[in-house]
Amino acid sequence: MPKMKAAIFVEPGRIVLDEKPIPEVGPLDALVRVTTTTICGTDVHILKGEYPVAKGLTVGHEPVGVIEKLGSAVSGYQEGQRVIAGAITPSGYSYACLCGCGSQDGPGTKHGFRATGGWKFGNIIDGAQAEYILVPDAMANLAPVPDDLSDEDVLMCPDIMSTGFSGAESAGIKIGDTVAVFALGPIGLCAVAGAKLKGATTIIGVDTVPERLAIAKRLGADLVVDYKAGDPVKQILELTDGRGVDASIEALGTQATFEAALRVLRPGGTLSSLGVYSTDLRIPLDAFSAGLGDNKIVTTLCPGGKERMRRLLSVLESKRTDLTALVTHRFKLDDIEAAYDLFSHQRDGVLKVAITP
Amino acid sequence: MPKMKAAIFVEPGRIVLDEKPIPEVGPLDALVRVTTTTICGTDVHILKGEYPVAKGLTVGHEPVGVIEKLGSAVSGYQEGQRVIAGAITPSGYSYACLCGCGSQDGPGTKHGFRATGGWKFGNIIDGAQAEYILVPDAMANLAPVPDDLSDEDVLMCPDIMSTGFSGAESAGIKIGDTVAVFALGPIGLCAVAGAKLKGATTIIGVDTVPERLAIAKRLGADLVVDYKAGDPVKQILELTDGRGVDASIEALGTQATFEAALRVLRPGGTLSSLGVYSTDLRIPLDAFSAGLGDNKIVTTLCPGGKERMRRLLSVLESKRTDLTALVTHRFKLDDIEAAYDLFSHQRDGVLKVAITP
Amino acid sequence: MPKMKAAIFVEPGRIVLDEKPIPEVGPLDALVRVTTTTICGTDVHILKGEYPVAKGLTVGHEPVGVIEKLGSAVSGYQEGQRVIAGAITPSGYSYACLCGCGSQDGPGTKHGFRATGGWKFGNIIDGAQAEYILVPDAMANLAPVPDDLSDEDVLMCPDIMSTGFSGAESAGIKIGDTVAVFALGPIGLCAVAGAKLKGATTIIGVDTVPERLAIAKRLGADLVVDYKAGDPVKQILELTDGRGVDASIEALGTQATFEAALRVLRPGGTLSSLGVYSTDLRIPLDAFSAGLGDNKIVTTLCPGGKERMRRLLSVLESKRTDLTALVTHRFKLDDIEAAYDLFSHQRDGVLKVAITP
Amino acid sequence: MPKMKAAIFVEPGRIVLDEKPIPEVGPLDALVRVTTTTICGTDVHILKGEYPVAKGLTVGHEPVGVIEKLGSAVSGYQEGQRVIAGAITPSGYSYACLCGCGSQDGPGTKHGFRATGGWKFGNIIDGAQAEYILVPDAMANLAPVPDDLSDEDVLMCPDIMSTGFSGAESAGIKIGDTVAVFALGPIGLCAVAGAKLKGATTIIGVDTVPERLAIAKRLGADLVVDYKAGDPVKQILELTDGRGVDASIEALGTQATFEAALRVLRPGGTLSSLGVYSTDLRIPLDAFSAGLGDNKIVTTLCPGGKERMRRLLSVLESKRTDLTALVTHRFKLDDIEAAYDLFSHQRDGVLKVAITP
Repeated sequence: MPKMKAAIFVEPGRIVLDEKPIPEVGPLDALVRVTTTTICGTDVHILKGEYPVAKGLTVGHEPVGVIEKLGSAVSGYQEGQRVIAGAITPSGYSYACLCGCGSQDGPGTKHGFRATGGWKFGNIIDGAQAEYILVPDAMANLAPVPDDLSDEDVLMCPDIMSTGFSGAESAGIKIGDTVAVFALGPIGLCAVAGAKLKGATTIIGVDTVPERLAIAKRLGADLVVDYKAGDPVKQILELTDGRGVDASIEALGTQATFEAALRVLRPGGTLSSLGVYSTDLRIPLDAFSAGLGDNKIVTTLCPGGKERMRRLLSVLESKRTDLTALVTHRFKLDDIEAAYDLFSHQRDGVLKVAITP
Repeated sequence: MPKMKAAIFVEPGRIVLDEKPIPEVGPLDALVRVTTTTICGTDVHILKGEYPVAKGLTVGHEPVGVIEKLGSAVSGYQEGQRVIAGAITPSGYSYACLCGCGSQDGPGTKHGFRATGGWKFGNIIDGAQAEYILVPDAMANLAPVPDDLSDEDVLMCPDIMSTGFSGAESAGIKIGDTVAVFALGPIGLCAVAGAKLKGATTIIGVDTVPERLAIAKRLGADLVVDYKAGDPVKQILELTDGRGVDASIEALGTQATFEAALRVLRPGGTLSSLGVYSTDLRIPLDAFSAGLGDNKIVTTLCPGGKERMRRLLSVLESKRTDLTALVTHRFKLDDIEAAYDLFSHQRDGVLKVAITP
Repeated sequence: MPKMKAAIFVEPGRIVLDEKPIPEVGPLDALVRVTTTTICGTDVHILKGEYPVAKGLTVGHEPVGVIEKLGSAVSGYQEGQRVIAGAITPSGYSYACLCGCGSQDGPGTKHGFRATGGWKFGNIIDGAQAEYILVPDAMANLAPVPDDLSDEDVLMCPDIMSTGFSGAESAGIKIGDTVAVFALGPIGLCAVAGAKLKGATTIIGVDTVPERLAIAKRLGADLVVDYKAGDPVKQILELTDGRGVDASIEALGTQATFEAALRVLRPGGTLSSLGVYSTDLRIPLDAFSAGLGDNKIVTTLCPGGKERMRRLLSVLESKRTDLTALVTHRFKLDDIEAAYDLFSHQRDGVLKVAITP
Repeated sequence: MPKMKAAIFVEPGRIVLDEKPIPEVGPLDALVRVTTTTICGTDVHILKGEYPVAKGLTVGHEPVGVIEKLGSAVSGYQEGQRVIAGAITPSGYSYACLCGCGSQDGPGTKHGFRATGGWKFGNIIDGAQAEYILVPDAMANLAPVPDDLSDEDVLMCPDIMSTGFSGAESAGIKIGDTVAVFALGPIGLCAVAGAKLKGATTIIGVDTVPERLAIAKRLGADLVVDYKAGDPVKQILELTDGRGVDASIEALGTQATFEAALRVLRPGGTLSSLGVYSTDLRIPLDAFSAGLGDNKIVTTLCPGGKERMRRLLSVLESKRTDLTALVTHRFKLDDIEAAYDLFSHQRDGVLKVAITP
């Protein structure tokens, strides 16, 4: 049985590069030879043991690669084709998928829903930080990559860009909206770009790292707020002349950002939450108008599937947004442990790393 | 200056019937002679001092009556016409109104929004528990009552029915949905009726009072859960075979019902919150899938305006729902203090009282 | 190779019962033994040669049956299970499906869309008027039937009920809407039921057959208009006091009904078109306010897939609507030619026929 | 009674500058001293007698100006403030307005709807091509202009930009959509800009005038099609590799553009129609998939009201789009007859003219 290298979760604190058999291809699957992948903040949660996965699992959920082998029931693709698959791989046929809710996909469950069930790579099946990855339900998930886009060009599509954009989409942003984005890591930066693409005309980015604030401006932020320079809620209310924002996007996953995102909303506004929280959340009574403010709190898990990927690729091809500044560092798969070390400590201004097997 | 009787907030614990001048009619106003009104749970909060209003304010926000006098700039109505006005009276012309968010109406504010600003009667202007009420922005708010509906027939329209139905509407209920309604007071009962009208096919009512559970069944509940017979979350998950509900409607305003309403959601489901809370709320991490469950929490303040009232009247005229069981007691305005006593102590199976000046 | 009986399109004017091999089961398919099926108006178009299909094709697209054999890649079902499949069988994985547009499914096409591509049974693959039917993409399409519903109870789900209800859904009906339904054949009657389920409070049915008008009233029509008693546009404008309707549903497929459905709309109203047209359509300038009336014309092809079927079954189980009056005649599959004769000539008050192999 | 100059419709073929009394200000009105206005294609229809208005009416519906006097019931503004009002002036309080359908505003009618009733200026009341204009329902319609925008900067807001953008909005454009815009006059050009603002990533502009195609590219068109170089339907299908577009926007008002806009749609796509038609329209059976293609035809009349204007001003302030290229010629009000001559004959590459009293 041929072997491949893969980054494997061993125990909390240890993800190591090891050898594994190249997976066998079931009828609905595709085997993809990974040419570029990356590390996500969620992988760091896995590394630290904060998000539990099975020991021995290959980590990573952001594959760019080439089709090596197609399952017997898969049609519409050729081996050798360059593709991406989303971090979330909906089956297409579960009740959740047919409800338009593929990220909560639950084939095999009694009712077709499972919370976060669409997130399979590096969570419940082997992931992308390896030489090969097996893509389930390939016909729903493989998205061909146009020739004029490089691997790095499209590396944000599977998760970062899809998640960030969904923050703007779930917020229901309309032409002329004012939007605040809390935390300008890679996802928050993509939320800024997404808010601009949806027609927001006043986008306020909140962070404190000057490089991030600068990239936010390039991606569409009209105003930036350094939360270390004073209460960001107060700053945003001043910037909006007391009105507040039509929508706020939370892109970190903490009580502080969640609560600030709630407090800056105008009556009737929407909090679009992207962060992965690790504690219970508190909704202050006054920030919630006692339940009478016509406010919405909407959470979104990264949308996946080949149609989603096709649309994101089209954004890049049309140059509507330019995310190349997000890849700050490059590593070989052989050096992925060093990449984790850099990324998990957020050293050296890292935003995203490109990993090439 | 002619006088009228009115129920006036004096101080926490005291709402008394007293005399006040009949209000003068501004150009956009209409003076309505109240023929029937009622007491709301919110009025009890005011009585108890839990919700602050100005001393001397006339309480109440649910008027049925007859037009006594029209403002000089008001056209399209005649004196003597029988009308209702919603509890919420949007101006029609604020930025909030023109955004489709009239309950958060803010004319006179800098930006046209004010949290709960559409709720004026018995909150920031004199209310309905009086012989006369001045309806602001009359052309946006006066809704003629069809002859074949009695005062009592339409008494739930201004608040209870509008609020309850909005719980179902904001939940985005679709044909075939499963919906749970937490707390079957008047608003929860109307939420049951609204969920049925929107096409929900499995409606689960949660309460413990047998009479309320029985009315819920008549209004559309397919199943009822007595929360004293065991954890309602567990009961609902069993009733739905582990799937959970597409939407839950919170109609009380407590942490317990809010949290249960969150826990019974299927992934991707919506919590539609109607309750007026009096404490901060907690979102348990697990009930929220750490922010990754594609869940929505939506709050709604009673929609108002004459078009809303027209639609609710049409529901009653077409006999799509029958809310007559909700009026359980009747009082003269002269006896309103006794009515408050009965209603605030929820004695004698009271749901709603009809007050007639 | 074992054989089965099937109703086969031979040439315009001739659908005959003949023998065919029982189909072989591919990896994604399920073979279903048909226990009840029916004839659709579209089948009559095929019979007459007005809608072209390949010679030798088995006709029919409304199967109720029992799973005989599952494809090798199909999980989540058992042989012997009672199921329905929709008339439209989306793959789940085409770009159209992943866009929420499964009726226009186009796997195998270059871009994943094909006009009416989701309609496969009795159109581009063998259909349901046979002893066995091969259901493609079984995991997306097989919907288990609850034990408490008979075959006849659920016979309208695959097409008639799904189509009729979609007319109300695509119209965006809201609580309190006024709706007119043009032509009260089986689909129009289901559109009436759907409009009621969505909250319409004034439903006006238009036809001339007394039995159909009577069934419409039982299913939710508040008013009925006999188009032979005078111009239905004029009648409806009178019934609505000159206002017109919020939505009209066209359920026949002629210029006359299409045009009338347009003319009864209030400004801003929606024409929801279900009919299969056989001629070009004309939009009169005045009926269209010269393009300035904020009107919508929306067409919908019967939604399919197991989630859709599940919801329709839930409507029946909850007794929200009762469609049993729609099956007026019963035939053995052996007598299907007689059934076509009766149905195509609309003799004997026929609405729908049940065919049992 | 003081007089002012105004461009008045005398009879078909004659709009002349004449004197009229400066209007008196009713309680809900504002008198605005016009500082800049423009001529619309609709005004040319009026000039030619193709669209009937009363003799003696002041023409024009696109005012930029300064508040001269406020009605007695108007608050929230000051005299001397620079403002615009939309071409469409919804009352805010009719049933249509409270339905979110203010362009079909009908206060004074029995039911609150009147087709195109929101369009008052230069249609049913005196318009903007004058020294003064009376704005009805001022509190719903006056939008303050930011100091950093000149009169010419904002001149497209009242109609051209609002209409063009609404074409993209009504089409329901999503991130990654492919959109075709038919006819690149001022409104079509704004539709291109609007489609870009909504996230379309492949925008195809159709016209034949090189200058218009060039401006379309600057405003967001990725591709342009010269309809004189070959059948635009064929060209667009080739450019989209046979798929067709998600949405097409018709911006002229002819059978040819309407039909082409229908033929380029993918199954499930939407035709968003902005044109003012002058003949009946024909829907070819094949272009409509016989009614089974899940297509939508949506018409939109220019949205108005101060909130709409505020949002459009915000687009300009944020420099999301730059419409300055649309004003190609400038005239004094005294020379408006020459302006009509130039504009109605589309001489000299005219797109829009600025008229200053």
